[in-house]
Amino acid sequence: MNMESFLSNNIKAALKNDPPGEWMPALPDKCIRLSSGYPEPSLVPTEQIKESVVSLLDMEKDLPLHYLGSSQIDKLKGHIHQRLTERAMGVQEDELLLTSGASQAIDLIARILIDENCVVALEAPTYMEALEIFQNYTEQFISIPVDELGLQTEKLEEMLKDRNENGLPLPRLLYTIPTFQNPTGTTMTKERRKHVIELADQYNFLIVEDDAYGELSFDQPSIPLKALDCEGRVLHVGSLSKVVAPGMRIGWVSAPAELITAMNWFKKDLDHPFSQATMATYLDKADLSERLNTLRTTYESKCGVLLSALEQYLPDSVSWYIPKGGYFVWVKVAGVDTSTLLTQALNEGISYVPGKYFYLQEQEGMSYLRLSFSYASKEEIVEGVRKLAKVIGGLE
Amino acid sequence: MNMESFLSNNIKAALKNDPPGEWMPALPDKCIRLSSGYPEPSLVPTEQIKESVVSLLDMEKDLPLHYLGSSQIDKLKGHIHQRLTERAMGVQEDELLLTSGASQAIDLIARILIDENCVVALEAPTYMEALEIFQNYTEQFISIPVDELGLQTEKLEEMLKDRNENGLPLPRLLYTIPTFQNPTGTTMTKERRKHVIELADQYNFLIVEDDAYGELSFDQPSIPLKALDCEGRVLHVGSLSKVVAPGMRIGWVSAPAELITAMNWFKKDLDHPFSQATMATYLDKADLSERLNTLRTTYESKCGVLLSALEQYLPDSVSWYIPKGGYFVWVKVAGVDTSTLLTQALNEGISYVPGKYFYLQEQEGMSYLRLSFSYASKEEIVEGVRKLAKVIGGLE
Repeated sequence: MNMESFLSNNIKAALKNDPPGEWMPALPDKCIRLSSGYPEPSLVPTEQIKESVVSLLDMEKDLPLHYLGSSQIDKLKGHIHQRLTERAMGVQEDELLLTSGASQAIDLIARILIDENCVVALEAPTYMEALEIFQNYTEQFISIPVDELGLQTEKLEEMLKDRNENGLPLPRLLYTIPTFQNPTGTTMTKERRKHVIELADQYNFLIVEDDAYGELSFDQPSIPLKALDCEGRVLHVGSLSKVVAPGMRIGWVSAPAELITAMNWFKKDLDHPFSQATMATYLDKADLSERLNTLRTTYESKCGVLLSALEQYLPDSVSWYIPKGGYFVWVKVAGVDTSTLLTQALNEGISYVPGKYFYLQEQEGMSYLRLSFSYASKEEIVEGVRKLAKVIGGLE
Repeated sequence: MNMESFLSNNIKAALKNDPPGEWMPALPDKCIRLSSGYPEPSLVPTEQIKESVVSLLDMEKDLPLHYLGSSQIDKLKGHIHQRLTERAMGVQEDELLLTSGASQAIDLIARILIDENCVVALEAPTYMEALEIFQNYTEQFISIPVDELGLQTEKLEEMLKDRNENGLPLPRLLYTIPTFQNPTGTTMTKERRKHVIELADQYNFLIVEDDAYGELSFDQPSIPLKALDCEGRVLHVGSLSKVVAPGMRIGWVSAPAELITAMNWFKKDLDHPFSQATMATYLDKADLSERLNTLRTTYESKCGVLLSALEQYLPDSVSWYIPKGGYFVWVKVAGVDTSTLLTQALNEGISYVPGKYFYLQEQEGMSYLRLSFSYASKEEIVEGVRKLAKVIGGLE
């Protein structure tokens, strides 16, 4: 029986636009994973999470294992609320929604705001999963390039002016990762932050600020867009994935109450009460500020190792941005198709993410690759870059 | 700023159709919860889940706390696969998708199959959350009544014939809970099961079989629709919520591979790896057959207590179906608006779910209410029915 005939028209279009199966190849067992945006293994608080589960279930018995039984879930909201307030993003209680990681937040945002008639503005390059999520809702995109100072807001303005003058539809929202962007590692300057908010006010669009890496700064923290926003145009998406553990799937979105109400409706009970209650119990005891300091120092040091190795081993034709936080270094290997190169790299025992995955127009990313310094050890990072240099050198 | 203007047209329609906020009122603290479809608290394996977390994290360290690190996740699929096979629903590996509870499975099914042009056939009454999920995708529904032998398939056939003859669009899918239905507790007979599958073949629609309660039979288990299906028209939705613990959010859908591929694409990484790995570790050690026997005996006994109390305390104007498994008894209080009555019931300290929530046309459910015998203790059940009788009696 032909099952495809049962698929809805929207989904047929989305699948055509963005067919499944074009993922990263499987990594060999002993591969040095410079592709993985996972936290440093030694900094995942495994023991503390274990203790939190034991203490939660001793305290509340079966309650956290029902649908909404645990009083800890509200506490988790309190913890996140407090953290937002400390970062100058005071929000009301009805302006915060817990989600299953940042992914669910982005999906819910797309779900309530975007249909096939809407235009979405994206950074080029941008986070591949967000790109895929938005592609499930519309085919109309505008790409705005990112440079080492973040999103090029003057290009955004040009585009908006141009579309306005030509009667073309303006974007309903802009999705941006202003701080330690995935994949480029770059951070939007304060001037550009103010500019993008002015543009949103002037051209009446919303901004989705994906702030997954925002707290992992090596020096001065950046001011979130949400903290600069007077009109309530910024939907701030956060996550504990990079700060505690991704497998717990704790994320959130803070946004105007009307939008939170609509998102909550579509979320229904796709919550994970046990995971949320465990995280709340963990945060009750954890010193998050101290933890963040450890994370920052560790990642700064690992980033330094990666940058030194790149300097030492890679030919002059290869260049990169220097990140001030986050997980990633964005590398340009001029004239090389990094997607083809990956096969050789994997054979050599090192993985990265080819640039094409981060672009709407895949060919734009052809000579870029994303390296992550978060997961691999320092020794692996150096060895990985050496292997990468060998593979790139082998082309010459 | 008017945030509503940013909502997508689809969502505006869905919210208009099905506005948020019309939920059950908050339950008073000391309420006897005959409304809650939660498992018997003493049968939630709290200690074993605690031990599973400890053993999992001792064994795999940080791996289950990353995105997809744990090898236990594949094992969970294996456990579920084996269980399906034992119940005569042998499926291939690419025909099974783990989901975040049955809710996510239903949402993904709606997402890939239903758009605003599609007709969905539903039981009347039906599971309120499924109703709400489908209402997020279309406004076109057909309701087929349920009696004590389950879905009235002869009425379904009449409707299909009628629509066919009149050139009206046929349903793309039928959503049914054939076994221990929520809310009626009724079970579709084998004859009707065969009939509904014949109708699906003849009129070319798919069947979503929600089997959340299917294993909780007091006597003979029923044959799942999926086991009777030759053409691959049945999408079987299951869950460990009623059998282990709802808060773990472990569900699945088994369906033809093409549909699983599409659903998997839209699910992205909305998985809960930690929860899945924990459940797999629990199932490695648990004797699920023995557990099911305990659950069946316990719920049969609690159901007996509820039925006896109904006989003893309620006036003759009140009637109900006698369930052969599951969690619920569906009660008709002739001539009474159970939604209005709830305020008095809550004042008296007993909760139930008014019938209106389970119907597309709320007024059809006006004189019904759903009682659950799963969560409250036997003493509470008797006391709760006594209170209910008092409230109903007070009307006379």
